[in-house]
Amino acid sequence: MACAEPNSELTLHSVRESLIRQEDTIIFSLIERAKYPRNSPAYEQSYASIPGFSGSLLQYIVKQSEALQATAGRYENPEEHPFFPDNLPRSLVPPYNYPPVLHHAATSININKIIWDMYLNQLLPLFVADGDDGNYASTAASDLECLQALSRRIHYGKYVAEVKFRDAPQDYEPAIRAKDRDALMKLLTFENVEELVKKRVEKKAMIFGQEVSLGNGHKGANYKVDPSVVSKLYGDWIMPFTKLVQVEYLLRRLD
Amino acid sequence: MACAEPNSELTLHSVRESLIRQEDTIIFSLIERAKYPRNSPAYEQSYASIPGFSGSLLQYIVKQSEALQATAGRYENPEEHPFFPDNLPRSLVPPYNYPPVLHHAATSININKIIWDMYLNQLLPLFVADGDDGNYASTAASDLECLQALSRRIHYGKYVAEVKFRDAPQDYEPAIRAKDRDALMKLLTFENVEELVKKRVEKKAMIFGQEVSLGNGHKGANYKVDPSVVSKLYGDWIMPFTKLVQVEYLLRRLD
Repeated sequence: MACAEPNSELTLHSVRESLIRQEDTIIFSLIERAKYPRNSPAYEQSYASIPGFSGSLLQYIVKQSEALQATAGRYENPEEHPFFPDNLPRSLVPPYNYPPVLHHAATSININKIIWDMYLNQLLPLFVADGDDGNYASTAASDLECLQALSRRIHYGKYVAEVKFRDAPQDYEPAIRAKDRDALMKLLTFENVEELVKKRVEKKAMIFGQEVSLGNGHKGANYKVDPSVVSKLYGDWIMPFTKLVQVEYLLRRLD
Repeated sequence: MACAEPNSELTLHSVRESLIRQEDTIIFSLIERAKYPRNSPAYEQSYASIPGFSGSLLQYIVKQSEALQATAGRYENPEEHPFFPDNLPRSLVPPYNYPPVLHHAATSININKIIWDMYLNQLLPLFVADGDDGNYASTAASDLECLQALSRRIHYGKYVAEVKFRDAPQDYEPAIRAKDRDALMKLLTFENVEELVKKRVEKKAMIFGQEVSLGNGHKGANYKVDPSVVSKLYGDWIMPFTKLVQVEYLLRRLD
């Protein structure tokens, strides 16, 4: 049962490195989205009347891009999760043997609906300017990058949970057997670490979002994305959602 | 003839601001591509045998993504240029009135074939690590981001040329009428400015590609993309190609 027994390539160190690297990706994607104003027609069902499709332009772009990337094998990688998993076409490329790291129950966990709602309704209004420049297709492509980066980071909670479980199964097993979500959530919460992460991503947003010019003079605090919004994104959504994924994963870990 | 007569919203300042902002986009896209190793199967015709498609996985992803984005209106924006312009489907969304800035001959200029070859054969080997992690679909999506950012920046030469021409038509008209490419190239070349740009993008690559940690200690020069490669990209390819676009545009400017 080589597949059911996760291998040992995963380490606390490699998981932590990946989480830190993904911070950069998320911040870059937000900075790029902030190049465009709100462009609200991209989100309005009434704007795009595309034959054979019912939904907003963003839904259209995300759904069709996912279908295309699925044929190229993107969702064979257990780190990737589609926003529109129903009727996703099969991969048309040769299979790649991703190392079996996660418990097989991982495949049943996908909280992209929650991520989509958070991004559209809560995050987006906080970091894009009002206005309309007509670039709806590019805006939606940019939203897709943000959504994919957030989804990958949040679902990486499966790997976080796996490595924590392997490190100390005796700590988790009683709560798992008791199906005690609150106890699991408590075991997974380290407030001082979360504060450090919030500070680090705020600093990254300052560094990556600054206006760089030659010469030493600082141009003042004119950031492309408000660093406090990035800190809030992590504190209010990314870390809580990651823990939700971790709890869901651990509840199935002994199946 | 409102369409034939470019309007006056374009300024030297706005063009310069856009060029500087696009530097960040290009550097972010390279840093993101560098997350993945070379992943050479994505570029090999023999790897992807997708029914009804002949070419590499990258060609498949770029061509199909462009077709999708075309239906969403991306190429209605004169700043955007497809890599596979043949048989591109029509936009299915309501038209947006982009301000008529360029001479109508601009639409006939597309040097994406040169950009594609430069990116694949010269740039890519300079900034990605050897290796294969199986993420070919994500790698190709990341290449698409790089290619689109480079294409947008280089074809922005049309706007650069337009604003320079408007600023001093008397300087350009004799060379345009004489179809003198060398004279035009000379008029468009400012070596000291080009050196400044190379220095600025190198600095940006250092800032955006650094490992950020809390605390003041620097972690040494461990950049995600070698800053000298970004400087070379601008000096050897982006700026020369932009001037090529400018010359082609100016040669048609009096048609």
